[in-house]
Amino acid sequence: MQDIMRDLHVKNDKRIVLLVMDGVGGLPRERGGKTELETAKTPNLDALAAEGECGLHLPVGFGITPGSAPGHLALFGYEPTEYPIGRGVVAALGIGFPIQPGDVAARVNFATRDEEGRISDRRAGRIPTEKCAELCELLSAVSIPGVELFIKPVKDYRAVVIFRGKELSDQVQDTDPQATGVKPRDPKATSAKGERTAEVAAQFIAQALDLLKDRHPTNALLMRGFAELPHIPSIQDRFGLSPVALAVYPDYKGVSRLVGMDVVENLEDLDAQAAALKDNWNRYDFFFVHHKYTDSRGEDGDFDAKVSEIEKVDRFVPKILELKPDVLVVTGDHSTPAVMRAHSAHPVPFLLHGGNLRPDDASEFGERSCTRGIWGVVPGSILIRLAMSAVDKIAKFGA
Amino acid sequence: MQDIMRDLHVKNDKRIVLLVMDGVGGLPRERGGKTELETAKTPNLDALAAEGECGLHLPVGFGITPGSAPGHLALFGYEPTEYPIGRGVVAALGIGFPIQPGDVAARVNFATRDEEGRISDRRAGRIPTEKCAELCELLSAVSIPGVELFIKPVKDYRAVVIFRGKELSDQVQDTDPQATGVKPRDPKATSAKGERTAEVAAQFIAQALDLLKDRHPTNALLMRGFAELPHIPSIQDRFGLSPVALAVYPDYKGVSRLVGMDVVENLEDLDAQAAALKDNWNRYDFFFVHHKYTDSRGEDGDFDAKVSEIEKVDRFVPKILELKPDVLVVTGDHSTPAVMRAHSAHPVPFLLHGGNLRPDDASEFGERSCTRGIWGVVPGSILIRLAMSAVDKIAKFGA
Repeated sequence: MQDIMRDLHVKNDKRIVLLVMDGVGGLPRERGGKTELETAKTPNLDALAAEGECGLHLPVGFGITPGSAPGHLALFGYEPTEYPIGRGVVAALGIGFPIQPGDVAARVNFATRDEEGRISDRRAGRIPTEKCAELCELLSAVSIPGVELFIKPVKDYRAVVIFRGKELSDQVQDTDPQATGVKPRDPKATSAKGERTAEVAAQFIAQALDLLKDRHPTNALLMRGFAELPHIPSIQDRFGLSPVALAVYPDYKGVSRLVGMDVVENLEDLDAQAAALKDNWNRYDFFFVHHKYTDSRGEDGDFDAKVSEIEKVDRFVPKILELKPDVLVVTGDHSTPAVMRAHSAHPVPFLLHGGNLRPDDASEFGERSCTRGIWGVVPGSILIRLAMSAVDKIAKFGA
Repeated sequence: MQDIMRDLHVKNDKRIVLLVMDGVGGLPRERGGKTELETAKTPNLDALAAEGECGLHLPVGFGITPGSAPGHLALFGYEPTEYPIGRGVVAALGIGFPIQPGDVAARVNFATRDEEGRISDRRAGRIPTEKCAELCELLSAVSIPGVELFIKPVKDYRAVVIFRGKELSDQVQDTDPQATGVKPRDPKATSAKGERTAEVAAQFIAQALDLLKDRHPTNALLMRGFAELPHIPSIQDRFGLSPVALAVYPDYKGVSRLVGMDVVENLEDLDAQAAALKDNWNRYDFFFVHHKYTDSRGEDGDFDAKVSEIEKVDRFVPKILELKPDVLVVTGDHSTPAVMRAHSAHPVPFLLHGGNLRPDDASEFGERSCTRGIWGVVPGSILIRLAMSAVDKIAKFGA
């Protein structure tokens, strides 16, 4: 369905702002009570919801809890199940590594092995991130002919390795045996295409083990989730938009780059994002503005702090409105109810304001109110079409 | 989409109960009045709906009236249009015949032929079921080398024949000419795979005609709907659930077996079902409890009697709740409005109670109230995902 957009999209100078409060969807503290969004005082968002069109969206599907990358892919107009992003790529994007088409990335765990080479601890005693960074530095001495190699710390005992070179592929099995008391598996190719990469990975492991040999408890490493960048058509090609991302966190810049967005760097907070929005107002027609901390406070289980973050975003909204966007979409990439301290599968409220609006019964921006909106529960990937349609960026289908 | 469930399902000890009131969806007696479900006094279901998440589901699709088997397939998490169940198999399941993979079943009509062998009555004067049973008994004398044969009465002039043996296939055309004044067609193979079965069917017909020759008006038979069991991935494989069916009627035990459920036999009524639920509580994590009579009274056109059946189920609900299921889903497999005396395409109300619930505006269990629920109108096949998601039986998609 999204494919017909390639033929139907129309360029004009109307501007769309997509404001994402990460993990905004929530749950009440006690059954039947108010959610975080319903609790927050959000006069600006409520006014937009009352005038605009509301609904709830499912980024991946009924009952499926979205990760951050799939959640954002949906908001950018892509069915996440059509573009699975492998673990290695997620790790690389997560640390802001500029992974390129053709690169192969894999997750690395530093681990402990005994004298016979059997894994005794798959996480090397959960070493701190600084120690991990030091080991990555050490392993950057590994040299493989014809391959450029990057190894970067992620968190604790986890790192990511990126191989760059010709004829690399993700068709390689994990070396992580997912158990202790056994030796790591070989990085075996799962198809002929993976043979060169399997060889590269084997060389990497051999040299790495040599460099790590006196470094108990971090004298081994395990690789998993070999992955290439998925072939995602750009948002320019697919939707004819000229997009820019205004995000603080590397993960969201990463997933924005994945669909071809320009990315403004060095944004520290909403004020900087507001300034960047203004600065770039004449250069683009699709602005993705991302606020992370609604999700962070949800993950912390801090209901009140999540409420505050939502209120902070509400106070930021007038700065967007000053610029007179033609359409403003406000939503999240998934729900992160504070009571669950985690992402959840609950549908995510959204509001769309601008263009010719069909009135509905949603009178404020909240989960229950959005249930009374015109759109009901829809796939997340269609929001971009609603926004484009509201400003005549989609041609009539058929005569 | 359901395929990603294979990778995402998570086993845990949380228990899901799916309570199905067959044909529960209804219509008011007079325009704008109350439906059967809205009329029924259902304090227990209303309380669950008020606290839980509500919506309406379409087992097959917009405007499509579901048969019982597709309706239940949807509730078990399968898109019914992906798993068509042939007429012969439906007939076999319908009478509770334990059809096996590799069996071929076909519907049989007893019919009347004239001296030239032309069909004069395709229904043999609509003989009663007892007469049909007697003829089936007679035809069980048919003997075909290498084939085990079962012939069983269904209702009136209709029976079902099941061939069990090697290399059988459903690739055989109907012998029923769908007209009188002409001879039955030969059981011709529609592909090379069907040749052995066509031969078996021809032998069956020849011997049967011989046994029936002096039995005017039941001196002929017509076959249609040759069918094999569809290859349905089991609910264990697909969803990682450990399921059991607690149903009184053979049809529902049949469709439960089709997806790999264990089936408790010899349940006579709701009391027996409650006892069986308790007895099996520690053995499974998915319990399908089926109540037939809401549909039966709808088919009878008896509005008040359907209301009573719904109230009976409401009084049964506390017996489920005593066991403290982690999730309870209450719904139907389709609508059977008493005013229509038949299955209908109307969406079916559902409620989901348990886990982390998003509050909605549905305050009781009824068609109109469920329209105010969070879910809107959804495909029936996704209910199992909502239930699993509510108790953390589905892993996050992507990072």
